[in-house]
Amino acid sequence: KKGLLERLKEGPVVGDGSMCMTLEKRGYCRAGQWTPEAVLEYPDAVKQLLREYLRAGADVLQTPCYASSDGRLKRGNIIYTKKSQTSEINEAACEIAHEIAQEGNALVCGGLTPVVSYSKGKDETIVKGEFEGQLAGFIKRKDIIDFILAEFFGHVEELEICVDVMKKAKLPIACTMKLGPIGDLNGVSVEECAVRMAKTGAVLIGINCLFDLDTCLKTLKRMRDALDKEGLKTPLMCQPLGWRCPETANMKKGYLMLPEFPFALESRQVTRFEVHKFAREAYNLGAHYIGGCCGMEPHHIRAIAQELAAERKLDPPVQGTCPPLGYLHNALSLRKEKLKKEFWMSLKAGSGAPFNAACVEPYA
Amino acid sequence: KKGLLERLKEGPVVGDGSMCMTLEKRGYCRAGQWTPEAVLEYPDAVKQLLREYLRAGADVLQTPCYASSDGRLKRGNIIYTKKSQTSEINEAACEIAHEIAQEGNALVCGGLTPVVSYSKGKDETIVKGEFEGQLAGFIKRKDIIDFILAEFFGHVEELEICVDVMKKAKLPIACTMKLGPIGDLNGVSVEECAVRMAKTGAVLIGINCLFDLDTCLKTLKRMRDALDKEGLKTPLMCQPLGWRCPETANMKKGYLMLPEFPFALESRQVTRFEVHKFAREAYNLGAHYIGGCCGMEPHHIRAIAQELAAERKLDPPVQGTCPPLGYLHNALSLRKEKLKKEFWMSLKAGSGAPFNAACVEPYA
Amino acid sequence: KKGLLERLKEGPVVGDGSMCMTLEKRGYCRAGQWTPEAVLEYPDAVKQLLREYLRAGADVLQTPCYASSDGRLKRGNIIYTKKSQTSEINEAACEIAHEIAQEGNALVCGGLTPVVSYSKGKDETIVKGEFEGQLAGFIKRKDIIDFILAEFFGHVEELEICVDVMKKAKLPIACTMKLGPIGDLNGVSVEECAVRMAKTGAVLIGINCLFDLDTCLKTLKRMRDALDKEGLKTPLMCQPLGWRCPETANMKKGYLMLPEFPFALESRQVTRFEVHKFAREAYNLGAHYIGGCCGMEPHHIRAIAQELAAERKLDPPVQGTCPPLGYLHNALSLRKEKLKKEFWMSLKAGSGAPFNAACVEPYA
Amino acid sequence: KKGLLERLKEGPVVGDGSMCMTLEKRGYCRAGQWTPEAVLEYPDAVKQLLREYLRAGADVLQTPCYASSDGRLKRGNIIYTKKSQTSEINEAACEIAHEIAQEGNALVCGGLTPVVSYSKGKDETIVKGEFEGQLAGFIKRKDIIDFILAEFFGHVEELEICVDVMKKAKLPIACTMKLGPIGDLNGVSVEECAVRMAKTGAVLIGINCLFDLDTCLKTLKRMRDALDKEGLKTPLMCQPLGWRCPETANMKKGYLMLPEFPFALESRQVTRFEVHKFAREAYNLGAHYIGGCCGMEPHHIRAIAQELAAERKLDPPVQGTCPPLGYLHNALSLRKEKLKKEFWMSLKAGSGAPFNAACVEPYA
Repeated sequence: KKGLLERLKEGPVVGDGSMCMTLEKRGYCRAGQWTPEAVLEYPDAVKQLLREYLRAGADVLQTPCYASSDGRLKRGNIIYTKKSQTSEINEAACEIAHEIAQEGNALVCGGLTPVVSYSKGKDETIVKGEFEGQLAGFIKRKDIIDFILAEFFGHVEELEICVDVMKKAKLPIACTMKLGPIGDLNGVSVEECAVRMAKTGAVLIGINCLFDLDTCLKTLKRMRDALDKEGLKTPLMCQPLGWRCPETANMKKGYLMLPEFPFALESRQVTRFEVHKFAREAYNLGAHYIGGCCGMEPHHIRAIAQELAAERKLDPPVQGTCPPLGYLHNALSLRKEKLKKEFWMSLKAGSGAPFNAACVEPYA
Repeated sequence: KKGLLERLKEGPVVGDGSMCMTLEKRGYCRAGQWTPEAVLEYPDAVKQLLREYLRAGADVLQTPCYASSDGRLKRGNIIYTKKSQTSEINEAACEIAHEIAQEGNALVCGGLTPVVSYSKGKDETIVKGEFEGQLAGFIKRKDIIDFILAEFFGHVEELEICVDVMKKAKLPIACTMKLGPIGDLNGVSVEECAVRMAKTGAVLIGINCLFDLDTCLKTLKRMRDALDKEGLKTPLMCQPLGWRCPETANMKKGYLMLPEFPFALESRQVTRFEVHKFAREAYNLGAHYIGGCCGMEPHHIRAIAQELAAERKLDPPVQGTCPPLGYLHNALSLRKEKLKKEFWMSLKAGSGAPFNAACVEPYA
Repeated sequence: KKGLLERLKEGPVVGDGSMCMTLEKRGYCRAGQWTPEAVLEYPDAVKQLLREYLRAGADVLQTPCYASSDGRLKRGNIIYTKKSQTSEINEAACEIAHEIAQEGNALVCGGLTPVVSYSKGKDETIVKGEFEGQLAGFIKRKDIIDFILAEFFGHVEELEICVDVMKKAKLPIACTMKLGPIGDLNGVSVEECAVRMAKTGAVLIGINCLFDLDTCLKTLKRMRDALDKEGLKTPLMCQPLGWRCPETANMKKGYLMLPEFPFALESRQVTRFEVHKFAREAYNLGAHYIGGCCGMEPHHIRAIAQELAAERKLDPPVQGTCPPLGYLHNALSLRKEKLKKEFWMSLKAGSGAPFNAACVEPYA
Repeated sequence: KKGLLERLKEGPVVGDGSMCMTLEKRGYCRAGQWTPEAVLEYPDAVKQLLREYLRAGADVLQTPCYASSDGRLKRGNIIYTKKSQTSEINEAACEIAHEIAQEGNALVCGGLTPVVSYSKGKDETIVKGEFEGQLAGFIKRKDIIDFILAEFFGHVEELEICVDVMKKAKLPIACTMKLGPIGDLNGVSVEECAVRMAKTGAVLIGINCLFDLDTCLKTLKRMRDALDKEGLKTPLMCQPLGWRCPETANMKKGYLMLPEFPFALESRQVTRFEVHKFAREAYNLGAHYIGGCCGMEPHHIRAIAQELAAERKLDPPVQGTCPPLGYLHNALSLRKEKLKKEFWMSLKAGSGAPFNAACVEPYA
């Protein structure tokens, strides 16, 4: 099995997609704390979703343990994890991801997330300790983990601490921030964040969550330019939201400020064709690892794999069922134009909701 | 296990939801012919989706064999079923639905669909033969089938023939038409269709697919009024689309006339709150069996079960994971108004797509 | 000067446009009671607006005395007309319209409107008396009046009484109702209204105000069909709103039920290109007198005159300043496509208001 | 009669509104070159529009001679001015503005505009000569001109040259640029433009045209901050568009890049309530001269005068006809909420056009 670095050299790598928000709709997660509960309580449902990403063409499956960190899990208000430990959750997540990755040819990526102790201003030793707690499971299961990822970081400084800890695992390291146009949560600019991320020595750096496809492209462009200026070659990674949210592009917390979050986002969900366009543009901007975060479901990941099939020198893996682009089928032949990609790429889809506005005033 | 008639007496019955369109997004169906292939090729993926409906509160699981009819399967252009027979597909579908229904307390409903021979004007004997072919599997597996449903009928006359055939099974019979405001495909009015459906002796009659929630409510109202006028007491059933499509409310083929069909419907998908409102209104109009068709996914079915929990004298079955309404969680407590149902019920969600119009000109 | 009947024989006749709502924006009317005050207090401003319609191509100028009827003027709450009489207002209106009509080749049309006594259910003698009061001024100034029009009638019965009174003037009679798809205010159908209007002997019958261009076309079609069925040849007249209001198409009071009425209708105003399209379709449906009501401003009337220039065998009268279609000018040549009518006819104009919905819930 | 400086000390000054675009709709201008023709050919129509602004509460009437500059008038493609000279037009414009200003208590402002010779890169002597040509008429009619204004400048450098020439008139000088967020046409920042404008010695500096109310407020804020930083006290002036055009906020040519320009802008027109809100915010940001440019019609100017009536220590001048806010009238009493300003201020008006998007892709 080729590793991450080898794959990145050969062509764009396709990531997986939405976990928690999708599992909530399917009935296996509760809004708020999201994923970790499910790996222990409903492993089959988690496996099924990962399998769908695999079949859609994902080259990587992340361990489904987002937000699994002792600091978070110990918060009194988290009902479902009273008895769970980070280590227990992370190990289960490793096994689940590995099992499904084996069904195809995917890599397994162990994920770390920001810690409560940092945001509470605790001493660096405590912060590092919390990251070490997250990392422990991955080190233990290093036999089935291909690389590790620090994701959803709001402060570049915290990310630097985390990557420093991650080095102990002796695995390739990737990292992404929930970074929008106005910079990180301390106001560190996109450009400085990019350079500092690259200087940690991570092999992939980028952004995930909180912002939509359009905003992601703008931030990638600025990151690429900043890296180029410094002569840094680190390839970019991006896993944006699957919802359009232009109203919150310039807010620190991005789409969390939408009134619709988290239960009424349906009409904001992108089509697979918006993802085709996005994947092409992100790739052109130097993103060599393209996946999705909340709201990017299997058919969106398939669109990335299909759009970049030539560059990846791979057939989209689900070709039997879903031919290239997935919409070449005789049963649509009454409308021959629908058999052509151009039809779909230029279509402006309606909401069917004339009494609703396109944009909604976000929270301040 | 209580049967259909007993359940209908006790309170509203919740149906299941979207199969083919949802499986297409998950990677197990191809647009065009939809479900039947999956029951043979990917039974686990089909089971998982049915399980999600069960967990969401569905009282009934339909056999996932929509469009499984020899006439259709024999069409040269259907790649995946070259070798399959209606009987083979329907039996597999029965077993799948039964297996999952057993995980809870759900009924299994065997489904029949319109036949090619009728639309081609063939002799009634041939038409009946094709329905008998569909029915055979259900008669064979009568041990695990609770009732049978003729659904998606465009001609009330064809439906009458089908119900006549179905009587041989000696099982309770339900039937639904893809009926919009302008009447059936021959122009038979909503009112006449309602009365004729009731007079077949079916224990449940109603509508499914092609039209959205608003249009469904209008049609239900007219059906109820027409039945009342004739003194007919048959309870109503409805399984509408999960997409808003006001533009095609007055077209025979409903949402099939949208340019977005079938691959770019995301921004038309209803929220769970629109389903709450719909379920309440449909129930008030006399619909005692409420489920969903294409686009109504697990969280939508859960909304029906939650909205009508009191009338059903049942807890929503997934209470552990998804508390009533699914949105009472501390992690949202930063926005206290989001903990209240009223917030969500009055929210007008945006599309985040200011360059797209609410409505799109349908095909003529 | 050719009279109304002669002109109708030669080709379509162009009416004038919005008075009260336009004068309110210009500062000469107060929302609520509208026109009559202005003819006495600000005759020059009223003349200027009529002149603009004349220059735009109107063949007819109506006397600007809408709602001038003793019953209305005597209502205690009408500040500006405490001292005015219907006769005084109507005579001033005749002179104003005549003066401007003389600047070109336009006809003068004396207008009558529904009376309070009818809606209060008074005796027919009293109702007729109120119409006679309105008619008196026109009979007196018969030297400068070319025909008379009963407009904005909500009850076909009241219109019949009015036309009966109008016959005394021995002038050609036209009549229009504020008639929407659901029929007159008593529920008399569009079809019956059309036939009864034609049977009064009026030379022109039709609809004005309350509904938008699209709704107007639908009603015209039904009127034409109903007249054809009875073998009635009376030509149709229409003076619709200049605002889009699909939300209130099926309400008795039409756009009066919009929250935006009367001060926030700007974004509903039609473009001249929508009027081009409307004029062509209305003409094709048999409308031989096409003008505008509230919101149809001079450039809209010009669009009617320009669209039907060939049928009218007339140059649009303001050709010197505004060439055919008004948009063939070198200064736009940077965008050559803008010199072509097709560009404008196919353009879907934006509102620039992404936080506003296309449609607004009307009052019930 | 109090002069400009005295009025500015006493409270906010209200400017006039749209000329050319409004006269085009009324039938007195042709799209492209706009105003100057009308002052010679249709002086009464021009006077009527100025009178409406006066009645609406404008403290200042500008000479309606926008774009009257020899360089422009000599362009072969300008039909209507073959024979006209800048001087002839400007003198007529002075007299027209003066005549109407006399009907109330308004000041007359002589307006200068950018010159062709500058944009063609001609020698400064030629540029100055062209400005001198524009200024000549105002110097000649200094008896009736209260102050002079350089407006619609795209280059701050050209503006500096113009103001330098204007000093010869020994009249108070105001100046405005068509300045959007990305700076002037040469890329000089908003902040630098503000400071350089203030340093010319003009008594009022600001922005006009090309951008909408929201964008205007953002630019005013940046100008105010830049001036404050330099300790400059010059009061601000603004005359924005009356159309919403968020799509072109970051384009040099602003709304000229909209496909709808100039004939299909109706649905973008602001309501008077948007102007109320704008006037209040602009005043709070230090704008002491607030008027309108293209698309700001009499009822919009009235909204400025009404919003700032208390600060101006003046009754809105048209009080007899249009009471404060213009919407306190018994005839609306069926909807009592409509008698309150809050109703209108919080109303989100619809476009009635569900098949049109809020935003339209501008030209690149």
